[in-house]
Amino acid sequence: MLRQPYLLFLGDAPDLLAAKVAKGIRDWRPDAAVGQLRLPGCKPDMGLPDMTVAEAADAGAKTLVVGVANRGGVISRQWIAVLKEALAAGMDLAAGLHNHLHDEPELVEAAQKAGRQLFDVRVPQHDYPIADGSRRSGRRCLTVGTDCSVGKMYASMAIEREMHERGLNATFRATGQTGILITGGGVPLDAVVADFMAGAVEWLTPDNDADHWDIIEGQGSLFHPSYSGVTLALIHGGQPDALVLCHEPERPHMRGLPHYTLPGLTDVLSLAERCAHIVNPAARTVGVALNTSALDERAARAWIERAREETGLPATDPIRYGAGPLVDALESL
Amino acid sequence: MLRQPYLLFLGDAPDLLAAKVAKGIRDWRPDAAVGQLRLPGCKPDMGLPDMTVAEAADAGAKTLVVGVANRGGVISRQWIAVLKEALAAGMDLAAGLHNHLHDEPELVEAAQKAGRQLFDVRVPQHDYPIADGSRRSGRRCLTVGTDCSVGKMYASMAIEREMHERGLNATFRATGQTGILITGGGVPLDAVVADFMAGAVEWLTPDNDADHWDIIEGQGSLFHPSYSGVTLALIHGGQPDALVLCHEPERPHMRGLPHYTLPGLTDVLSLAERCAHIVNPAARTVGVALNTSALDERAARAWIERAREETGLPATDPIRYGAGPLVDALESL
Repeated sequence: MLRQPYLLFLGDAPDLLAAKVAKGIRDWRPDAAVGQLRLPGCKPDMGLPDMTVAEAADAGAKTLVVGVANRGGVISRQWIAVLKEALAAGMDLAAGLHNHLHDEPELVEAAQKAGRQLFDVRVPQHDYPIADGSRRSGRRCLTVGTDCSVGKMYASMAIEREMHERGLNATFRATGQTGILITGGGVPLDAVVADFMAGAVEWLTPDNDADHWDIIEGQGSLFHPSYSGVTLALIHGGQPDALVLCHEPERPHMRGLPHYTLPGLTDVLSLAERCAHIVNPAARTVGVALNTSALDERAARAWIERAREETGLPATDPIRYGAGPLVDALESL
Repeated sequence: MLRQPYLLFLGDAPDLLAAKVAKGIRDWRPDAAVGQLRLPGCKPDMGLPDMTVAEAADAGAKTLVVGVANRGGVISRQWIAVLKEALAAGMDLAAGLHNHLHDEPELVEAAQKAGRQLFDVRVPQHDYPIADGSRRSGRRCLTVGTDCSVGKMYASMAIEREMHERGLNATFRATGQTGILITGGGVPLDAVVADFMAGAVEWLTPDNDADHWDIIEGQGSLFHPSYSGVTLALIHGGQPDALVLCHEPERPHMRGLPHYTLPGLTDVLSLAERCAHIVNPAARTVGVALNTSALDERAARAWIERAREETGLPATDPIRYGAGPLVDALESL
C-alpha cells in the first residue's frame, strides 16, 4: 500500500491525456494529494497548490506519485533530479511507467540511502496464492465490459463514491496500475503469472463485513481474445454477487482488433453470468454503465434508453448522470 | 527447443509415479531417448538400455532430461555430480523441477564452462506477443476438460499418434512442463504473465499447411475457479476448429476443491463452444475422451456408452481403446 498523502508529479506533460493518473487522482481522490509539482512546459493543471519538493515535504507528503506518462519510454535527467530530491526529503516514489523506477540505478541507490521505497505498480508486489474458490463473507460487485477501455474503472469509482455518499460500506478494488496509483493499493492483474490470477483477486477481496461491498475494477472482456483469460480470472476469483455491464457506444471494432466487432450487450451479460454462476449461483447483472463521453446529450440519452430496453436493466452514464440507478439496484439486491 | 536424443535421468525414483516425465517419454516418444541412467535405489525401469553418462554421450545423447521429481524439493549432491558430468560430456540439461537448475550455482558454472544450456521448462523461454486474434491457416484441435488432470495431455498425444499412423499431418503442442519435456518444445502456459497467455498460444500454433492439425494440450477447466483463465486463453489463443472433451468419471469433486462438484459433460461442451465461437464461429466439439484407468472393463464400457448418449458424440478412452473414433471425427470435419 502506498503511503498517503501524495505529491502529484506532473513532469512536463504536454496535455491532459498524458496525465491520466493525475487526472484520476484529481477526479476520485482529490484529498489524497497535498499538491502538484509541474516542470517548465507542463500544460495540464490539476487545480492543486503548486509545490516544490521541500514545500510538499513540509505539508506532509509521504509519496511522490508520477502522474504522467514519460515520453519515449525514457526517464529524463530532469525527472531523475526531482525524484531523487523527493527521496532525500523522505518520500517514497510510486509510478506505473513501462520502464521501471527500479531500472534506474541512481534512484535505487538514492532510495536505499534515504531508507525509502520505490513502487513500480505494474510489478506485482506479493506472492499471491492459488485460488481456492471458497465462498467469502461480504458482498462483491464486478464491472465487466463489452471491450477493453470502455470505462470499467471510472464506473467502479463512481459506484463506490455514490455508495459512500449514501453512507454504505464499500471499497473500490483496483486491478490495474492507474487504479492502484489513484487509490494507493491493488493488484496489477495483467502482470500476474497465469496460475495465480484468480488467487490474486481472492487476496484482493477477502472476507469482510456482511454489509460490505467490494467494487472490483474489471479488466479486458470475455469477448476480447487477447485478454479474456484475465477477465475470467476476475469473475472466478472475485465471486461477484453483482455484475455491472460497461460499454462505450459506437466503437467501430474491438480495441486493437479491427477484424472483431463488438458483442451485443445481452451476449456479454449472458456469458458473464454463466461464468459467474460457476462460483456464485446467485450472481446477476444489476445494470449497465455506458461511457457516452464522445456523444452529445441527445445521443447519450438515446443510447441509455436503448441499453435499458435491450437488457431490461437500469442504465446510466455514471460519470455524466451519476451512478444512482446502479447503486439503487445494488441496494435492492 | 530441446536437442534430441535424450539421456533419461531417473535418479533414485522410488516408484513409477515419481517418474511421470520418464514414463511419458517412454509411452509417447520412446525413440527420443537413447538410454536411461538410474542411481542406486531407483525402482522404475523404462525398458531402455542402462547407460553411464559417458556411454550415453557416445550413443549421441544431446540432452539429459530429468525424468523424475526430486524429493523434498532439494537437488541432492548425488544428482549434482551426475548432472555436472553430463554437462562436461557435452549435453544440455532439461528439467521441470520446482526448484530450478538455474538456482544451483554449481550447475550454472559447469554449463557456462562447457558451453551448454540449462532448460528449466517451468520458466517461459520467450517474450511472447500479445494475441491479435487473426485467423491463421491450418487446423487446430484443443482438448478441454471437466477438471484439471483428467487426461488432456494423454488424449492429445493419443490423437497425434493415431493421426500419424493414418499418415495425417499433425503436431502435438505442449502447454505444460511434462509435455514440453516429452516432446522437446512448447509453452509452460501456467507460468506465463497474464497479458501474454493467449499470445503465447498463438505463437505456439502459427500459420501452417491447410491440411495440418495442431493438437493442442489443454490446461485447467473453464469450470475450475483456480485456473479457468488459463483455459479461456487457450481457447481464444488456440482458435480451435475442433474441441475434444476430456473427463475422468467418478471423481468426487473438482481437483483440490472439495466444495465444487464436477460439471456435466454437456455443460462443459456448451460453454467451451460458446467461448470458442468468439474467435472461430465454426468451432465444434467432435468427441469425448474418457480416462477410465481407475475402472474395470465393464464400468469403462458403461461410461463410454453414457458419454455417447449424453453428448451425441463419439466417445472413447483413447489410451485403453485407441483414439480412432476421435480421429474419425476430426477427419470428417
